[in-house]
Order: sequence, then C-alpha cells, then structure tokens
Amino acid sequence: MLPFDIHILGCGAALPTPRRLSSAQVVNIRQKLFLLDCAEGAQMALRRTHLNLSRLQAILLTHLHGDHAFGLIGLLSTLGLLGRNQELHIYGPKDLQRIFQPQIDYFCADSPYPIILHEIETKTPQTIYEDRSLSITTIPLHHRIPCQGYLLREKPTLPHIRREAIDYYQIPISQINNIKAGMDWVTPDGETIPNQRLTTPSDPVRSYAYCTDTSYFPDIIPHIQGVTCLYHEATFAQEHALLAKQTHHSTAAQAAQIARDAGVQKLIIGHFSSRYKTEAPLLEEAQQFFPNTILAQDGMTIQL
Amino acid sequence: MLPFDIHILGCGAALPTPRRLSSAQVVNIRQKLFLLDCAEGAQMALRRTHLNLSRLQAILLTHLHGDHAFGLIGLLSTLGLLGRNQELHIYGPKDLQRIFQPQIDYFCADSPYPIILHEIETKTPQTIYEDRSLSITTIPLHHRIPCQGYLLREKPTLPHIRREAIDYYQIPISQINNIKAGMDWVTPDGETIPNQRLTTPSDPVRSYAYCTDTSYFPDIIPHIQGVTCLYHEATFAQEHALLAKQTHHSTAAQAAQIARDAGVQKLIIGHFSSRYKTEAPLLEEAQQFFPNTILAQDGMTIQL
Repeated sequence: MLPFDIHILGCGAALPTPRRLSSAQVVNIRQKLFLLDCAEGAQMALRRTHLNLSRLQAILLTHLHGDHAFGLIGLLSTLGLLGRNQELHIYGPKDLQRIFQPQIDYFCADSPYPIILHEIETKTPQTIYEDRSLSITTIPLHHRIPCQGYLLREKPTLPHIRREAIDYYQIPISQINNIKAGMDWVTPDGETIPNQRLTTPSDPVRSYAYCTDTSYFPDIIPHIQGVTCLYHEATFAQEHALLAKQTHHSTAAQAAQIARDAGVQKLIIGHFSSRYKTEAPLLEEAQQFFPNTILAQDGMTIQL
Repeated sequence: MLPFDIHILGCGAALPTPRRLSSAQVVNIRQKLFLLDCAEGAQMALRRTHLNLSRLQAILLTHLHGDHAFGLIGLLSTLGLLGRNQELHIYGPKDLQRIFQPQIDYFCADSPYPIILHEIETKTPQTIYEDRSLSITTIPLHHRIPCQGYLLREKPTLPHIRREAIDYYQIPISQINNIKAGMDWVTPDGETIPNQRLTTPSDPVRSYAYCTDTSYFPDIIPHIQGVTCLYHEATFAQEHALLAKQTHHSTAAQAAQIARDAGVQKLIIGHFSSRYKTEAPLLEEAQQFFPNTILAQDGMTIQL
C-alpha cells in the first residue's frame, strides 16, 4: 500500500523541554507531505525524518498559540534557502495574515517561492484541500481562541485487477478500466464472468483526524466517526480535570471517551503538560475507556 | 574566581541542521546571564545548560537575520510561562520594535514580566549596560544589514588582601578598604609597611568580544584589542573567499588575522556554513595565522 504515515515531530504542550518539542507532525500520504502545526524546532525535527522536504504541500495550523506556530517563520526561511520554488499554502484561523505576513515580508523578502496564507473560518467544517486521492477538511474545536482540527481522508480507490484471471480470459487491456469500475466480462462464447471473479476488493480508505487543542467537545464526534486513527490532545490527567476545563484542554480520559464514542480504530494521545515526568498514568487512564490507545512520542512514526 | 563562562548554544550559519543550531550563546558573568543572539531552538538549548533562567539579564541581538532571532519569541513566551516577573531588556538594531513588538503584543499578551526593546544605532560603539562589575559595549560590524557585535568586559577589581599580613600587623578591619585602595600601613611604632606587602594583585580583567556576522573588517581591531577571548564568525574557508565577500561574511583565515592583529588571547571561530561536513580545514586555516584558535561546537562551554 502507498504510505499514510504520521511522523510525530513534537507532542508537548506549551513548554517545550529538551525531551519534547511542542506541537508538530508531518503526515506523508502517498509521498505528499502535510505539516500539522509548527512548533519551534519543527524544521530541525522535520529534517531528522529524512523526508523529502520538496514534497511539502501545505502547512495546517490549528490555532495561533505560540506552541503551535513559533517554528513557522524558521521553516519558511529554510525552505527558501534550500531553493524551493513551488508555492506553499498555509492554513490557519483568522489573524494568520496579520501576524505572519509582516514576518514573511521582512525575513523572507528574497523568498524564491510563493507563500500563500489562507484564513479559515473555524466554526464549520471546510474542505481546504482536495486532489485525486485525498481530501482535507477542518474540524471545529473548542479552545480559548479560534481553533480547528484537520481530517485527512483518502478517497475510495477502485478494486484491484486479478492479473491471473485477466490472462486466463484473455481480456484486452482496453477493458481493464471498465472492469475496475465494476463491469462483468462476456467471453466471445457468450459466457458472463462476474466482476468479483476478476477483481479483489479495493484498499480500505484510511483517514486521520488531528484534534488539538480542545476541551472535551463531543460535537466533533460526527466529524471523526470511524476514522482509522485519531490524535486527540490529552494535556492533563483526570486529577487535573478542573484545570483542563479552565484552560480549555482535555484529560486523557476525555480523549479516550471521544475515541470510544466516535468508534475510531486507534487513538494517539499527546500534547502532554510538562508537569508529568512520565505519561504512563495518562495512558492507563485512557485505556480504561479505549484500549487501543498509544502515547505520542517525539520521533515516533505511525503507519496507517 | 567568579565565573565568566561562554556557553555555545548554536554555532551554525543560516541553515540549522540536526547537528547544529544557528547562532545563540549565553554568557554567565558572576551569575548574571546575557544571551547573545537567539536562533530558533535557543530556549531548548538554554534549558539543557541547567543555568538558572531567572538570572537572565538581557538579550543582545547582533542583527535581524532570522538565524539570529527566530528563537526570540519562543523564549520570551516560555519565560512568561515559567513565571518570570523581573523585566527583560532586549537590544538590537533598528526595526527591532517594528518586527518584534507586534509578535510580543500578540503571543505574550498575558506576559507576567515587562519586555523592553532597545534599538541601538550600529555605526558607533554604544555602552548599553553597566553595573558595578561589568560593562557591555557594542562593536560596529560590517554586514548586509545593520549589525553590531558586543564586548562584555569586567571592571578592574581591587587587589586582594593578604590575610596573614593583616593578622601579623594587627591591622583593624576598618582599614581594610583603604589598604585595598592602595594605602600603606603605618604601625604604632611608626614603621611604614608598603602596600605591596599587604596585598596581592587584583584578578586580571576578563573580556569577551562577540563578532558575528561580518565581512573582514579591520575597523573592529581597536575595539577588541587584547580581549581575553574573541568569537569571530568564520562562515567560509578561504577557497570561498569570493562568496564570503559577496555575502558579507568572513573566512577562517580572515577571522584569525583579525585575532592576531588585535592581539587577543584566544579565538573561537563559528557560524559555519552548512556546506562543510567537517570544520577541521577551517581550524587548520585559522591556526596558520592564530594558533590559539578553537572551533565552536553546540553545547560547548568556554571558561575565561
């Protein structure tokens, strides 16, 4: 299968530590790269992945808190120094232009590639990207400032041709697309070969929902129903539930309840407060509600 | 002796790499910390030093190229989250306020401590900081945009009292300061004890000059004459002297010639172009002109 890989560049909360950057991930979907949030240090972590940076299509910011955006200007500058010429699209909530355009104008004045900022209305889901095989839609979240998650979803693919059946029935190449599209085959003798004997099922559609930062917000459930993988912030443990509520963040238990109620296949929790020396209790707490939970970790890759 | 330590946080040029951050150093002078430049990632490197961040007095930016300043807003934000309440002074060339004040206003709106930006005229040396034991003066440099180095210099201290001589002559405590200041002592018998029998010489005055980014610029020599330690950029090897000239940077040989002609005690070269996989040839080149040269390295501490 073509890759659909999530590379965690940073999964800490507001305070980066020597052990953990703040929020940044890069998703490699069929060799197209999408950067989700861009904390300080993201460009260095990105280069450690050895992914081909020229394949970066877009940068998707959830919101304009520094721990999700302080690495943006450095990355944009570096891409210019590396000779990028393909345009780069950056998505984020309102104020994106007001805050970043002056920095770009000053520090990337000689940029050899166009940088295009898109401000997205965060109250309703918006499809911000679409190509033959993929769509990206925003997920309204509930935080102290306008904030949105992102749903990256493959489009359904056609079934696979069974090579040996095609050979056996001597079906001409010109008919392959019709058969992929579901047609039966009628032999020169008039025998009808049903489509399912000529094909194997298409690959399952993979999808990834990135939901940070947000308080416990069940409104997101319809948008993330059944996704292959959900990243949900779990800044706090349940013992700090009040603090989570006050700061518009989630606990590990709440993240897991969202995962369970949305019937997702796998949950990654992250955006851990630096107060926790180990995240084991957060994992344990989440797994009580949703066993297939893992802890994010800087440098980790998850293959869907 | 009280510390006068230089901690190299980053010594790469424009392109940070997984091995090397761009420019940032922290100088610990008698437990007061001064940050010289603030590349992206400086705050993480700073925390790895385990220095007490509350002792940070000022941030001294040489110029407003991103590889010297992209870490500023992240550090300011983190200091706020860590609960700093003491005011912090930031020095840099013109445009400092225009570029950074809007970022500070937006991202550090709840900052619990005052952040004060000072724009410094870069054409003539300016004394920007002075206390009982230390002064900091700018050094005009020659780069593509307004740029200044910094000279951090201890003030001369008084001689040390020779405890055993004081005891022997039974000199009262009330006279100690007079003797430190150079007075002889007259015993009750009328014998004059010359001051040099009562004291040992004061500590040598230590000084550190930080000169980056700059083309070969002998005008700086009078300002850095005889310093204990000079950090001078050496972006390129002599084989790229033309490129150095075009980009207003220096070669290792040029840095060493400046060190030699200024009669400094020790030279650290840094700001290495990412094109060099090893800096050994840069060191070799510099040592032909100035043997007491060392290569900067991220994480290195130099004690003066």
